[in-house]
Amino acid sequence: MQNGDMPKLISFKNHQDSRGIMGILEDQSLPFKVQRWFWIRQVPEGASRGGHAHKSSRQLIICLQGAIEVDLEGPSIKKQHYTLEPHQNQLLYLPPLYWGYYTFKNNAIALCMASDYFDEADYIRDYRKFEQLKHDH
Amino acid sequence: MQNGDMPKLISFKNHQDSRGIMGILEDQSLPFKVQRWFWIRQVPEGASRGGHAHKSSRQLIICLQGAIEVDLEGPSIKKQHYTLEPHQNQLLYLPPLYWGYYTFKNNAIALCMASDYFDEADYIRDYRKFEQLKHDH
Repeated sequence: MQNGDMPKLISFKNHQDSRGIMGILEDQSLPFKVQRWFWIRQVPEGASRGGHAHKSSRQLIICLQGAIEVDLEGPSIKKQHYTLEPHQNQLLYLPPLYWGYYTFKNNAIALCMASDYFDEADYIRDYRKFEQLKHDH
Repeated sequence: MQNGDMPKLISFKNHQDSRGIMGILEDQSLPFKVQRWFWIRQVPEGASRGGHAHKSSRQLIICLQGAIEVDLEGPSIKKQHYTLEPHQNQLLYLPPLYWGYYTFKNNAIALCMASDYFDEADYIRDYRKFEQLKHDH
């Protein structure tokens, strides 16, 4: 993890006309090279996903529809909350070692971009282990 | 354009459980390095987008919700039609020199990935010019 690497909102371009709304993102405006994408849909109303942190992978989270309530806990913050909605034209950058819960509302769709390929060894799924790693950091 | 470069469907991984449906894509399974993303939403029901081709940019089109009817015309095909829907777990690869119309149905959302940054000079917006370029190809 880079020193001082904190969650932050990153703005992206937006173009709206009579044919709809387009969000636009170029790799040069991102804090890492994207190697993996995943998109999440048809989450039961109000259900939460997450409940893990990553040792080294970094992620970007974009809300394409509805709203996503993000609750984070990490080395530099006790608790942090974000509400992601499409009209904000902002994505959330998530550094490693942030434990997150993501509650999907209003038929939310999330697009996520990750710095690394899937590796189960990069996941911290035990909250007590997360607290220990956070403390040691 | 690469010789024999044709539109094609590319499968991606899918994971479904009680918390929703996740589509997953890694850069190593894609035919080009992605430099730009754009996502299109809130298109009026049945409205068409597109009406242009690209000189060199290549694109991937993923339907995240609803259905997208794609009508293509290019150097190697007279006309080609695809219906993209999320449950297919396939994206459409689009080479350069393919004129396309994209009709959005059922509150469709499209995620597109492009091989190049935005450059108006790469767009062919005049159908007669497109036909000439296609013929010369």
